[in-house]
Amino acid sequence: MFKRYLPILTWLPHYTSRLFAADLMAGVIVSIMVIPQSLAYAIIAGLPPVVGLYASILPLLAYTLFGTSRTLAVGPVAILALMTGAALAPIAVAGSQAYLQAAMVLALLSGLMLTLMGVFKLGFFANFLSHPVISGFLTASGLLIATSQAANLLGISASGFNVTELLPGLISSLPNTHATTLAIGAGSLAFLVLMRLWGRQSLRAIGLPAGVADLIAKAGPVFAVIITTLVTWHFDLDSQGVAVVGDIPKGLPPIMLPGFDLSLWHELLVPALLLSVVGFVESVSMGQMLAAKRRQRISPNQELIGLGTANIAAAVSAGMPVTGGLSRTVINFDAGAQTPAAGTIAAIGIALVTVALTPLLYHLPVASLAATITVSILTLVDVKMIRQTWRYSRSDFSAMAATILLTLVEGVEAGIIAGVTLSIGLFLYRTSRPHSALVGRVPGTEHFRNMTRHDVESESHVALLRIDESLYFANARYLEDTVYALIASRPEVEHVVLICSAINLIDASALESIDAINERLKDSEVTLHLAEVKGPVMDKLKQSDLLDNLSGRVFLSTYAAWCELRKHPDE
Amino acid sequence: MFKRYLPILTWLPHYTSRLFAADLMAGVIVSIMVIPQSLAYAIIAGLPPVVGLYASILPLLAYTLFGTSRTLAVGPVAILALMTGAALAPIAVAGSQAYLQAAMVLALLSGLMLTLMGVFKLGFFANFLSHPVISGFLTASGLLIATSQAANLLGISASGFNVTELLPGLISSLPNTHATTLAIGAGSLAFLVLMRLWGRQSLRAIGLPAGVADLIAKAGPVFAVIITTLVTWHFDLDSQGVAVVGDIPKGLPPIMLPGFDLSLWHELLVPALLLSVVGFVESVSMGQMLAAKRRQRISPNQELIGLGTANIAAAVSAGMPVTGGLSRTVINFDAGAQTPAAGTIAAIGIALVTVALTPLLYHLPVASLAATITVSILTLVDVKMIRQTWRYSRSDFSAMAATILLTLVEGVEAGIIAGVTLSIGLFLYRTSRPHSALVGRVPGTEHFRNMTRHDVESESHVALLRIDESLYFANARYLEDTVYALIASRPEVEHVVLICSAINLIDASALESIDAINERLKDSEVTLHLAEVKGPVMDKLKQSDLLDNLSGRVFLSTYAAWCELRKHPDE
Repeated sequence: MFKRYLPILTWLPHYTSRLFAADLMAGVIVSIMVIPQSLAYAIIAGLPPVVGLYASILPLLAYTLFGTSRTLAVGPVAILALMTGAALAPIAVAGSQAYLQAAMVLALLSGLMLTLMGVFKLGFFANFLSHPVISGFLTASGLLIATSQAANLLGISASGFNVTELLPGLISSLPNTHATTLAIGAGSLAFLVLMRLWGRQSLRAIGLPAGVADLIAKAGPVFAVIITTLVTWHFDLDSQGVAVVGDIPKGLPPIMLPGFDLSLWHELLVPALLLSVVGFVESVSMGQMLAAKRRQRISPNQELIGLGTANIAAAVSAGMPVTGGLSRTVINFDAGAQTPAAGTIAAIGIALVTVALTPLLYHLPVASLAATITVSILTLVDVKMIRQTWRYSRSDFSAMAATILLTLVEGVEAGIIAGVTLSIGLFLYRTSRPHSALVGRVPGTEHFRNMTRHDVESESHVALLRIDESLYFANARYLEDTVYALIASRPEVEHVVLICSAINLIDASALESIDAINERLKDSEVTLHLAEVKGPVMDKLKQSDLLDNLSGRVFLSTYAAWCELRKHPDE
Repeated sequence: MFKRYLPILTWLPHYTSRLFAADLMAGVIVSIMVIPQSLAYAIIAGLPPVVGLYASILPLLAYTLFGTSRTLAVGPVAILALMTGAALAPIAVAGSQAYLQAAMVLALLSGLMLTLMGVFKLGFFANFLSHPVISGFLTASGLLIATSQAANLLGISASGFNVTELLPGLISSLPNTHATTLAIGAGSLAFLVLMRLWGRQSLRAIGLPAGVADLIAKAGPVFAVIITTLVTWHFDLDSQGVAVVGDIPKGLPPIMLPGFDLSLWHELLVPALLLSVVGFVESVSMGQMLAAKRRQRISPNQELIGLGTANIAAAVSAGMPVTGGLSRTVINFDAGAQTPAAGTIAAIGIALVTVALTPLLYHLPVASLAATITVSILTLVDVKMIRQTWRYSRSDFSAMAATILLTLVEGVEAGIIAGVTLSIGLFLYRTSRPHSALVGRVPGTEHFRNMTRHDVESESHVALLRIDESLYFANARYLEDTVYALIASRPEVEHVVLICSAINLIDASALESIDAINERLKDSEVTLHLAEVKGPVMDKLKQSDLLDNLSGRVFLSTYAAWCELRKHPDE
């Protein structure tokens, strides 16, 4: 019981010094690596950079207690930062006190929602985000973030959370490009791209062991940040107009509850729900993938509680919404983290930085942060997935395309809502006109297949109709039409056998329709039979009057119906 | 082509004097019978009584041209009147010029939507209203209308379109009950109930032929109206405080377009959509039932055009939203109408009344109209359906209960939206955790059934897994969990056969999941096979890489897989 809600109890009693050594190493590496991205994501969300650091301390401790993934690293991530910014932009001026408060409220609401969803085991909600919608959403968000960071790379300003807001500003300020900033930005960008493409091989080629080469290559952003900070400081570039991170308050995050303002809470409900679902889907699919690699399991509903408490922790420590981040998790995993204790160690490391080392970040140029964001974010753009989806299913593709288009043009909220609505609508549309087939017997077997696709035996007075869909309100009327059309076009039919092998559910609307079909066929002196009704469906039918009123019989198999109803029983 | 869009061409060329005689009779009867209800429904909608008459003239002519049902009678109906009132209440003061304009706009928007839905063949949209939701909605609407008419029966005032608005006013004005009004109301009510319950038998008992007895019994409301009007006129009851219909302008309806006001149109979009869908569902299911009785067919998409043009006709002739009305259609059908010409004759009859006879309606007491509405509306309350749904499916029942509750407490719009949303949500939830079964062979046959329900043969190294649901985004992850749990719990399994007989669709998300399962089983040295893949599903799979990467084979039947994979092929 306790173990279920406090997964820390499953691993802490067996904790060894060997595990601690691995976790310590991973924790230290993570705490160094995530500083640049934490600052950068706060900037994307329109928040002061220090908020990104705050959100990387307490939330990690909460997840250590309540999370089930051994290696997931929690913190601010790019997509949630974009969604946070988009949600807060209409509410307050970026950077104002009201804006900071709203960010905390957003994290709190999202944390409460996630926790409650976990307690009530509502993790299945996340399933309504189909893969094509998620992938389209990530692609479009990546493009949006890259566009917004282009302004920082060029030293100009452009704000907004969709292309119709961003592009005009970006284009009109293009002549104001700040040359020194561009040099720093482009330099960092080039360095990071090279590091990513050839860093590992080159470092191994000069004789470094694989693990170390890997780590240094991954630390590219850290080097970029250190080098550009030193250059900016040495040449006093900030006085020449290069935007820098500037003063970051020293000390631990203040612990306080966000203010309660009903209308603000109300306004942030939908954004908080979308943030929760997107964050959860992102995090849990990554967690599952990594757990599978080490033959471990995670519990999605407990993960909701882990992420929920992490967000509540972010809310009470002047933070921003958090979730399991791809890049920080990969770093943690590759650095050999064994238990969530690595997260605690990383939290302590980042806390030490905020207490003592923030003055060192003063000269960090915003352009080099923009470069690190741009390089990491463009990996979200998944052209291969777009192409595959187009090839496999136009219907899935249209949901994906709508998501991409609306996210780009209208923003993250519209994009994800459109994607989910369209996926559900298309699924309902497809199931509302079910495929059905008249089947016949594959000669010499007990197997029956579609008469138009296979060479099969049939009897003209028996119509064996297989309906390839669960029967429910959206297709109940369609079923009636199908049967009536069949009877009208084949007057010689005396028996209709509905083959129910693909019917997994008959709801009340469909039950009424079958009742109506039964009555109408009786009038036309046609007998209605059922075959291959599945156990759970049969259990339900027994609670209705249908089986008493049915003019024909219920057969165990299509073959049994065939043997009984055909006119020439000699085989 | 012409015949398809102008169904009048299918029957007019074959029109005979015999048909005309039947239609003339039905038309005259209908025009007399529907006058009280037309006045009453306008009052429910908060409109002047004459609007109900106007809406029973031109719309009938439009439907004569474009409708496909031979016997459907179009006009104002109780449910749409309630919905119209609820939609207009927040927009203007009942009875004001702005209110009249808004009613016309509502009819116009609804007419345009219906016509466009018909042209683009979007009739299937109506399928998303499940039977339990419709039935719950009608029940709750009936109760709401009865509650609102109780005030008219008592001679007090209570306004509103949900019980939280209606009840407090009704209860607080109870002491002001107007005795004479109550006497008229209660008297009419008693007369109508008796007429409905025993009128037919009694009239036949005193020797009238069945048809005539039937007709007189159905004409109960007309007699009630005539008698109470005469009584009120004779005793000058209106000067004693009995509310009467009063002055009705004489003459044909004015022909004019409703004004164009973008913000008003925008505000009425959702109500118009709901009105359209509810009106269509009501009308088309009645039309189908009646058509079936005479072995005729109606075309749902052409019906949309018929109802759409009828509403446009209502809009340009100072009317209100209309659809096929249950009581007027039953009267029309029973009076022997043969073609839509009966509707034209009824329209001419009602036009004559508005031109010449409206002064006769001056002394008609509102209380006796309220009595006719109450008696006819309570037939909508369908307790049997509620009980049946509860017995058959808790899930359908919960959608029905939510519809009833929200319609009563919040109003028609909230009720119907909640019902539809909940039906769809529950359907998705049910399909998101599909039933699956490990199956074995029914001894001596080629038939395979659930191992836990039937006594079947199995082989320990082959898992025959039947998934009873189409695979799509909502259950893709659940499928992975099911297969991984199976493998984990049965280490002796070497072959997993996914039996796809109930799988009617594999979307892009599910395809990714099967790919993932295939890869992961390969790692565990388990082979994945597919069996009984349906034609359309197979066609899609061939467009993906799955079949190339599949570790096992695709079998035509489960039996074929069984024969191939079992270790002891001697039978």
